[in-house]
Amino acid sequence: MLAEAGVTLDGPNPWDPQIRNASFYRRVLLNGSLSLGESYMDGWWECRQIDEFIHHILRSPLGENHRFLSHFVTWVQSRLFNLQSSARAFQVGEEHYDIDNDLYTAMLDRNMVYTCGYWARADNLDDAQIEKLDLVCRKLDLKKGMKVLDIGCGWGSFAKYAAANYGVEVVGITVSRNQVELGQERCKGLPVELRLQDYRDIDEKFDAIVSLGMFEHVGHKNYRTYMETAKRCLKEQSRFLLHTIGKNHSRPGVDPWIAKYIFPNGEIPSLRQISGSLENLMIIEDVHNFGPDYDRTLLAWFHNFDAAWPGLKDKYSKRFYRMWKYYLHVCAGAFRARDLQLWQIVISNGASCTVYRRPE
Amino acid sequence: MLAEAGVTLDGPNPWDPQIRNASFYRRVLLNGSLSLGESYMDGWWECRQIDEFIHHILRSPLGENHRFLSHFVTWVQSRLFNLQSSARAFQVGEEHYDIDNDLYTAMLDRNMVYTCGYWARADNLDDAQIEKLDLVCRKLDLKKGMKVLDIGCGWGSFAKYAAANYGVEVVGITVSRNQVELGQERCKGLPVELRLQDYRDIDEKFDAIVSLGMFEHVGHKNYRTYMETAKRCLKEQSRFLLHTIGKNHSRPGVDPWIAKYIFPNGEIPSLRQISGSLENLMIIEDVHNFGPDYDRTLLAWFHNFDAAWPGLKDKYSKRFYRMWKYYLHVCAGAFRARDLQLWQIVISNGASCTVYRRPE
Repeated sequence: MLAEAGVTLDGPNPWDPQIRNASFYRRVLLNGSLSLGESYMDGWWECRQIDEFIHHILRSPLGENHRFLSHFVTWVQSRLFNLQSSARAFQVGEEHYDIDNDLYTAMLDRNMVYTCGYWARADNLDDAQIEKLDLVCRKLDLKKGMKVLDIGCGWGSFAKYAAANYGVEVVGITVSRNQVELGQERCKGLPVELRLQDYRDIDEKFDAIVSLGMFEHVGHKNYRTYMETAKRCLKEQSRFLLHTIGKNHSRPGVDPWIAKYIFPNGEIPSLRQISGSLENLMIIEDVHNFGPDYDRTLLAWFHNFDAAWPGLKDKYSKRFYRMWKYYLHVCAGAFRARDLQLWQIVISNGASCTVYRRPE
Repeated sequence: MLAEAGVTLDGPNPWDPQIRNASFYRRVLLNGSLSLGESYMDGWWECRQIDEFIHHILRSPLGENHRFLSHFVTWVQSRLFNLQSSARAFQVGEEHYDIDNDLYTAMLDRNMVYTCGYWARADNLDDAQIEKLDLVCRKLDLKKGMKVLDIGCGWGSFAKYAAANYGVEVVGITVSRNQVELGQERCKGLPVELRLQDYRDIDEKFDAIVSLGMFEHVGHKNYRTYMETAKRCLKEQSRFLLHTIGKNHSRPGVDPWIAKYIFPNGEIPSLRQISGSLENLMIIEDVHNFGPDYDRTLLAWFHNFDAAWPGLKDKYSKRFYRMWKYYLHVCAGAFRARDLQLWQIVISNGASCTVYRRPE
């Protein structure tokens, strides 16, 4: 069944899964993606390159005469990588809530940016994240004294960078108290205000808006509301930069493993959904797809996580380690297979009669 | 009614229409866009800046308490600028068929490019068109010896430029015999083959595909077929550049004036329609919106047309002159108001694991 994808169970290649428990087959065939991940967490199979295993599966050709494989791949794609939130009854795993700042501090770059880096010129994670933050500032044409809204500010990495390097004032909002506290501390002395606030409750005018890696938590039923909020908060000649993971289709579908263990409310948008949610409201000035840079970012995160593991392992279980390793590699493989995209979309309300020129 | 838009009938501003026939009001209110254009052709009203008149109307704020104006603007937008082809029963005006190559030779740049120029560095039409053609070649990363398909080749302007400057072989297809003949003559001595062929009949592999200003004639019912054709003809690691006018919504609607006099089969796509037609088929690597450059292009075309008029006027009627002037200015105003967009979309089949980097 997997031969077409160049994958051999117990085969010699680094991407071939090595089956350690004979019940694996039955468990995965019966319960799909959830069991594929959970059986990995349980040590039922090993794989030196989980990312390449996923890459191979997603790249496999789908012939008409391979109905079963075709079905399997479609199912992997729609189950594993469509993180839509229509299924509300997911169980959030205990593992998820055990994650504390120390894990992210160890895994991420020194500015704690939990979104895709920009690797056009960078050769390490710190630089890739700085390059990304700076690219965003230039795309928004930030100037000293501007007031910027950051929807989904995380630990304040963008706010800090933009305030320190472009002399702007930043209001960042997040729904995580943890992020507000650590973020406010990291931005001390800068004109940055981080608030615990839902995006729907914002009603102030800004010279620019940025949203990095937050749209994946909005949900398609709220896309229009999200865009209306951005428009309401945008001054006449201003820009909104939306940075989000994207998928290649608009079918609904939730991956039970990702939903249970990693992103309880995740939903990856399609470009059709995003452009649909903007119709007759705002204008797309530019779409920049650098999805393959997420492959490198995820592997850099794993490298950091793995190196920091000796200092983390008293707090987290061995099963957590396998879960986290699986998550980062599965996503890296999906970006490599171009099954997932990373878009920076520059949006305006169309007030400007001049062309938007993307900076280098 | 028009006060909100800053427009005064018989007012002092260059964009204020001057009404020459009192029946104008009744005719336009009864029969909308068609009559607005036809009454201009008939000399019932004058306007020094038709482009600014349209720009003002499309920019006007729509308050809840301006129901009539709001209705009027919505109607102008949906009637005048949605060139969808769902209405099949349009009557193609006699004026349309009277247009011969001499008109386009006089109006267009010396390479006869009948699509939007790229004005980032250019300050005249010839340069803007060369810059556009060269930008396309660089986006496709053309190399000597490549075989390129040009869907909707016009008079062979891209084929000639790419073959002469990048050493590629070009197959261009068009449904106009007139274009094949003049185009083949213009490309003499170059490895260019122009064919009278429908895009659906192409089934060969190419190293790159380009389609400049042809998608506006495809029609939404054929978008998927068009994209499937491109995918079928694209080699594994190759790119497809789609250059098209776009609109801000996906509502159906045909403007009877434009359909009758200018583009009998025109239908402007939305980004939602384009991205929808590509789902699970190909990947959007880049969207470059330079719509305001069409404003400048259209005005440059009018400048050339107007200057050449003394040599054309024996062949065309005075009414034709007014029709053509109205067409170019109405479209310029719509691009200025950001009611229409110009997109260059780089598409791939996702075989490459590396990021597409847009050239300068």
